Amino acid sequence: KQKELEKIAGGKSSQSREAFRAVLAGVLERRLFYIPSYKIYNGVAGFYDYGPPGCAIKANITQTWRQHFVLEENMLEVECPAVTPEIVLKASGHVDRFTDFMVKDVKTGECYRADHLLEGTLEKLLEDKKNPLTAEQTKEARDLLSTVGELKEDTLGAALTKYACKAPDTGNDISAPFAFNLMFKTSIGPRGDMVGYLRPETAQGIFVNFKDLLYYNGQRLPFAAAQIGNSYRNEISPRSGLLRVREFTQAEIEHFVNPDDKSHPKFSLVADLEPLLYSRDFQMGDEKKPHPIRLGDAVSKGIIANETLAYFIGRTWLFFKRIGINPQRMRFRQHLLHEMAHYANDCWDGEIETSYGWVECVGLADRSAYDLNAHAKMSKVDLKAHETYPEPRMEEELKIVVASKEVGQAFKKDAKTVTEHLQSMNECDAMELKAKLEAGSGDITTIDGQTFTVTPKMVDIKKELVRKTGRNFTPAVIEPSFGIGRIMYSMFEHAFYTRGEANDAGSDDARGVFRFTPLVAPVKATVFPLLQKAELNEVANKVSTSLTAAGLSNIVDTTGTTVGKRYARTDEIGVPFAITVDYQVQTDNTVTLRERDSMAQVRIPVPEIAGVVKSLVDGVSSWLEVQGKYPAQQAAANSEVA
Amino acid sequence: KQKELEKIAGGKSSQSREAFRAVLAGVLERRLFYIPSYKIYNGVAGFYDYGPPGCAIKANITQTWRQHFVLEENMLEVECPAVTPEIVLKASGHVDRFTDFMVKDVKTGECYRADHLLEGTLEKLLEDKKNPLTAEQTKEARDLLSTVGELKEDTLGAALTKYACKAPDTGNDISAPFAFNLMFKTSIGPRGDMVGYLRPETAQGIFVNFKDLLYYNGQRLPFAAAQIGNSYRNEISPRSGLLRVREFTQAEIEHFVNPDDKSHPKFSLVADLEPLLYSRDFQMGDEKKPHPIRLGDAVSKGIIANETLAYFIGRTWLFFKRIGINPQRMRFRQHLLHEMAHYANDCWDGEIETSYGWVECVGLADRSAYDLNAHAKMSKVDLKAHETYPEPRMEEELKIVVASKEVGQAFKKDAKTVTEHLQSMNECDAMELKAKLEAGSGDITTIDGQTFTVTPKMVDIKKELVRKTGRNFTPAVIEPSFGIGRIMYSMFEHAFYTRGEANDAGSDDARGVFRFTPLVAPVKATVFPLLQKAELNEVANKVSTSLTAAGLSNIVDTTGTTVGKRYARTDEIGVPFAITVDYQVQTDNTVTLRERDSMAQVRIPVPEIAGVVKSLVDGVSSWLEVQGKYPAQQAAANSEVA
Repeated sequence: KQKELEKIAGGKSSQSREAFRAVLAGVLERRLFYIPSYKIYNGVAGFYDYGPPGCAIKANITQTWRQHFVLEENMLEVECPAVTPEIVLKASGHVDRFTDFMVKDVKTGECYRADHLLEGTLEKLLEDKKNPLTAEQTKEARDLLSTVGELKEDTLGAALTKYACKAPDTGNDISAPFAFNLMFKTSIGPRGDMVGYLRPETAQGIFVNFKDLLYYNGQRLPFAAAQIGNSYRNEISPRSGLLRVREFTQAEIEHFVNPDDKSHPKFSLVADLEPLLYSRDFQMGDEKKPHPIRLGDAVSKGIIANETLAYFIGRTWLFFKRIGINPQRMRFRQHLLHEMAHYANDCWDGEIETSYGWVECVGLADRSAYDLNAHAKMSKVDLKAHETYPEPRMEEELKIVVASKEVGQAFKKDAKTVTEHLQSMNECDAMELKAKLEAGSGDITTIDGQTFTVTPKMVDIKKELVRKTGRNFTPAVIEPSFGIGRIMYSMFEHAFYTRGEANDAGSDDARGVFRFTPLVAPVKATVFPLLQKAELNEVANKVSTSLTAAGLSNIVDTTGTTVGKRYARTDEIGVPFAITVDYQVQTDNTVTLRERDSMAQVRIPVPEIAGVVKSLVDGVSSWLEVQGKYPAQQAAANSEVA
Repeated sequence: KQKELEKIAGGKSSQSREAFRAVLAGVLERRLFYIPSYKIYNGVAGFYDYGPPGCAIKANITQTWRQHFVLEENMLEVECPAVTPEIVLKASGHVDRFTDFMVKDVKTGECYRADHLLEGTLEKLLEDKKNPLTAEQTKEARDLLSTVGELKEDTLGAALTKYACKAPDTGNDISAPFAFNLMFKTSIGPRGDMVGYLRPETAQGIFVNFKDLLYYNGQRLPFAAAQIGNSYRNEISPRSGLLRVREFTQAEIEHFVNPDDKSHPKFSLVADLEPLLYSRDFQMGDEKKPHPIRLGDAVSKGIIANETLAYFIGRTWLFFKRIGINPQRMRFRQHLLHEMAHYANDCWDGEIETSYGWVECVGLADRSAYDLNAHAKMSKVDLKAHETYPEPRMEEELKIVVASKEVGQAFKKDAKTVTEHLQSMNECDAMELKAKLEAGSGDITTIDGQTFTVTPKMVDIKKELVRKTGRNFTPAVIEPSFGIGRIMYSMFEHAFYTRGEANDAGSDDARGVFRFTPLVAPVKATVFPLLQKAELNEVANKVSTSLTAAGLSNIVDTTGTTVGKRYARTDEIGVPFAITVDYQVQTDNTVTLRERDSMAQVRIPVPEIAGVVKSLVDGVSSWLEVQGKYPAQQAAANSEVA
């Protein structure tokens, strides 16, 4: 059954995938992993509350992320506000371009994402066995489907009309598509004249602090800054549970690096890993399948653009494994050229396979110097780093010498304006003028809109070789960006299985189990007094106190129900270890310890129990080692009877 | 000097307090503990970014809070969104009443908090030695000053006029005060018709989930739920650094309890603690000073309303101590009667003394059933718990028996409306009608506004003794609410001191040190190779790797500067332990370990260093024990030379 469901989860049949998801969703909601927010007020789409187990797991994943990335890489962690003044997001481009196309039901005013609507319509047409499309129509629909996400307003509108898309809930006509900005807007301060937005990503908080962070790092590159925090996107029609929500936790890294040297000092530590890579070539090829490739080879063959990007792909792969993602069901998909922003050098998505298909959980992008340049331009603050060359170099430098006498005579009161203009020309403009001057004369237009004709006598433009000991430059940034909620949901799917109890005759209830790693598990151990007796409860409380003192979250379950039922209850929230206090404690001071997935039990002395569980949770010892050291509890099978 | 500055921080002179604060602020900003947000865009008041050390300390404090409260008390932790639909905050009262009074500069439009402005004016008048007030004027001004926070709009306006308050920046006239809602407003979803706010507190997320949480807890009371998350208040004129910001982290607990039994099973664990209590009596008395009182006595004498509230006061006191707050500089101040909301039973503020005076860092309130009743009423969802009595009780129950024949004859088509009205009367209305009926007849007004005259023949109203096995009731809630930023800032003040180096002749630079507890310290250890030599760097990196593997954050400082300067740099961010790798490592494989506050050093073998630091950080062993076990490093004094 376990294998069966796993197969289902990754299977091709949408029906069996949905059956798996329904069983899982039932457990997740009933045990309060997460639930729709504001339920007593009928909820608001796109918002979820994490209940106790969800909250604990999220804290564990976040803490593991911090340990795995921030601590092990000595990153500079920052925490910035979600409320952001408009100018920051104007600079980043979000105010102008962070939009989705929306259409409205012309009668009810209900809103839909235009691309999703077109997708749905095309998929239905393609699947329609009764009225099959012609070969030509099929090709056209398929081509359109593969580019829906990148259509511009007019093309999208034309396609919606051509395929006669209607409002899905009512069948009514829809409006033409129009851009809708996905940021939540607000107003900062009492005057009401300062527009603010809730940040749509945490990254901008790092970019605006670049100068201070560089200083903090002793002006040295490369360094990485990281931020864990909530981001906000006012999605048009949120769906798919935790996968598309309006408020979500991101963990983002901005690794600042010299654009001429993107090697990574620790690359050798990941070079031998072989994650499934779904490169551009594999995606464009016939097979359309990812393949395991050694990261060292991926860099040397130019599949991944540089060592730093590949290093983070490797580290992400290790992180996924550490929190319990099945390595066979994660892959790194390279962005196709038309998917990438114009400034990006190379982008890979860390994708995890779920019942919804492959879900983008991490974005890894080499964004070049785009972000820092954008903020430097808007804020007029220099966001450059300095590099001292290992030894001085001869470099070409632009020299512009203005003949003040000639300029003065020619332009009189405007001479100062002209001089300033000439001296402040950038390289491109200067070389263009030089070419014109060599052909006779050239016109310049100053900032106030006046045009002047300049002759070769007035200005000398040349490039000279100059001895340089270093240079200022805008660092490139390599950005790994993690969506914690999506990773968590995918992990739930990979961890979940059901099992029927072999000796549980008469009941066909499959019991849900989460095989969470001890690191991620919301509660590390449960403690059960076999019967509701004061003398057993006392031992149980003593055990619980010792677990708590060891920093292990635990629950004492003193309900009078059978131990089998209590095991089932604890399996359902993925508690890895269960301790049962039975009457044998009075003769030899031992209790039983049960491992969740094997359901095997051993007997352990009370004074040792917290230490043993701690070493299992920390990964210092394995269950096999514990089984080797302590006697097995033979009654195990019986106590599982419900 | 250390004692001097501590005295200053708690001293009475505002000048010396400000000097202390300026030195501290310099270090905090220079070392990026926290900095104004959006600095390159000239900042936005009330927003701060935490840099690397601030971020690490905040994570440590939050994690300690989670361990101290959530884990040790088995609380149900939840995480809810910040974006909140209007109806939730309408129910809680925030939409209508979460306001401050504001005045505007009539010329510039600049906004000020009316109460702060009046306070400032009154303080200036009272301190003005040149134009002293008469005894009568002084009394009037003092009385007003003590109630400024509770003035209503008209009284406040009259006072502002009477004392001729002007805009502080310009001296211009000000407008009359008007209420300004402090919530950030936004719009949810694409239609633009759903108003949302950023939550002004995390508590409401717990209340709306009460039903599910009670179910999760097996329908048993008492239980506590907790939430750590960001809250948002659009303050009119934020000031005082981290103490009054627009986006801040709260950690809130809602402890749900039977209103008839507010005892706490673990109260005995805190009963002997003696925190400084500043009760209502002490505040109203002549001495105006808090006193240490045993919590057990405070409850038995009725100073604190109940055991549960006192339990959380004790736990808060322990938490403060654990993170390094000086117990002499924390107190619990009881709200005066006029400060409390009408529904509250008892409220205490956990206050910490800083250079700004006593700062409210925690609010501990017995809020009765107010919040759950408010949400039950607005959502029409039953938010009650059930209590099964230990044994059945005889209880009075209201019985309303309508004589349908009489009512039918009298009211014909309205008979149904009248019957329904009579049967749904609450106890109060029913007893009032009963009294009227006994005097002859009574009028009732139905929901649609019609009035009917009812006679004694039509309805029988009585109270009967009924055997009950249990009852449904709305739980009371006891709410400890922590402001993490304020606690952090106060902790910074308590941890900070300066020291000049005795042998640092010629320099009068006092060096800043934070005596953070190892638990809270942003980095647990720094590692210094004595000289920039490959063989020393190699050992340093090995030591660093072993520290990281033990989960200890650490920094390797390979800058060529003197070890003394490197010690100073590490003291300034409060790193408790520094490890220096010198050439002796080549003969006996030992390095030195220096403790921050004593500056004493011992020599420890490289293979043991991570274990020793780990046991010190975890509090398993003390520095004294380590000094007893390992040989002292005699060169310590020299290596501190800058």
